[in-house]
Amino acid sequence: MKELKERILREGKIRGHNEVLKVDSFLNHQMDVAFLQAVGQEFRRRFDGCQVDRVLTIEASGIAVAAFTAQAFDQAPVLFAKKHKTKNIAGDVFLSQVESFTQDKRPYNIFVSKEFLHPGERVLLIDDFLANGSALEGLIDLVHQAGAQVVGAGIVIEKAFQPGGERIRAKGVRVESLARIASMSEETGVVFCD
Amino acid sequence: MKELKERILREGKIRGHNEVLKVDSFLNHQMDVAFLQAVGQEFRRRFDGCQVDRVLTIEASGIAVAAFTAQAFDQAPVLFAKKHKTKNIAGDVFLSQVESFTQDKRPYNIFVSKEFLHPGERVLLIDDFLANGSALEGLIDLVHQAGAQVVGAGIVIEKAFQPGGERIRAKGVRVESLARIASMSEETGVVFCD
Repeated sequence: MKELKERILREGKIRGHNEVLKVDSFLNHQMDVAFLQAVGQEFRRRFDGCQVDRVLTIEASGIAVAAFTAQAFDQAPVLFAKKHKTKNIAGDVFLSQVESFTQDKRPYNIFVSKEFLHPGERVLLIDDFLANGSALEGLIDLVHQAGAQVVGAGIVIEKAFQPGGERIRAKGVRVESLARIASMSEETGVVFCD
Repeated sequence: MKELKERILREGKIRGHNEVLKVDSFLNHQMDVAFLQAVGQEFRRRFDGCQVDRVLTIEASGIAVAAFTAQAFDQAPVLFAKKHKTKNIAGDVFLSQVESFTQDKRPYNIFVSKEFLHPGERVLLIDDFLANGSALEGLIDLVHQAGAQVVGAGIVIEKAFQPGGERIRAKGVRVESLARIASMSEETGVVFCD
């Protein structure tokens, strides 16, 4: 997606070699809603013709992208997996453990209420980043626990130098990333795969 | 907002007396995006004519509401305050401490990058719930630290039997809640203020 790559080049802030890419001016802290709508429409274009009953993401930075994607998919319901266990979630949940690489490195649980994920449903997964693939594997696990089907995964930015994309594709999941980064460093900037 | 009240009556799940109201079938776990768009438009109607330069909310369940509100406000930028300190936030932030009543009762920090909140900006605050008002007070604090102005607060559901709404209004902040709950219990159901 051309507009996305341009914004990454213009606004992205890199730290280290193949480490942190901050895009918090438009994607995951401050959010440009016109841009996110365009992202949603691009996912619709890429997965058009696939039946999508539900969009599933993970809090927090996946939520807005998933909401605009659902808007583009004829207002399909969105479900966001929650991290940790909170008091307000009672009853039966599907639960999966996710390794963490960006925060304090401690694994955390993600869960969704069993009420909102049903056998046979066709689920489109959405997230802002794909790196090690751990969060996305957790979402896939939740869908499978429910007896539902994964249509594919729509990712805004894939760090293609990390193993997640390859690992998820090797499971037969269709992954559509709107920008795939081959490498990045403060010296060379961001180099895209294509 | 009539549609909201109807959905609370139809889908809301109450636990205890004036304690937990679960609306996770349409608002803060599964999300009905057509409904959230209508919520955004209702906030636009209520704050129409007020200049809104930016929408500010807090992760996670405020994000989708804020995104659709921003969409209704001519694509104003959205900023969501993050909870806790993560590795990917570097540099200067505005920070405020929030008491917690719904999770583990331990206070937590919320913060936004100083880059995205500017002196003189007119900021509309958005959140899904207003109860004790602690999170909203934290957001107001962040806006004031930046030297920006609070236009008002758009709240989806106000638990009017708790002190937050009164406390925030007493500070001179305009609070628009789309449903105000006078009381609720498993026996009587939800009783609205108006």
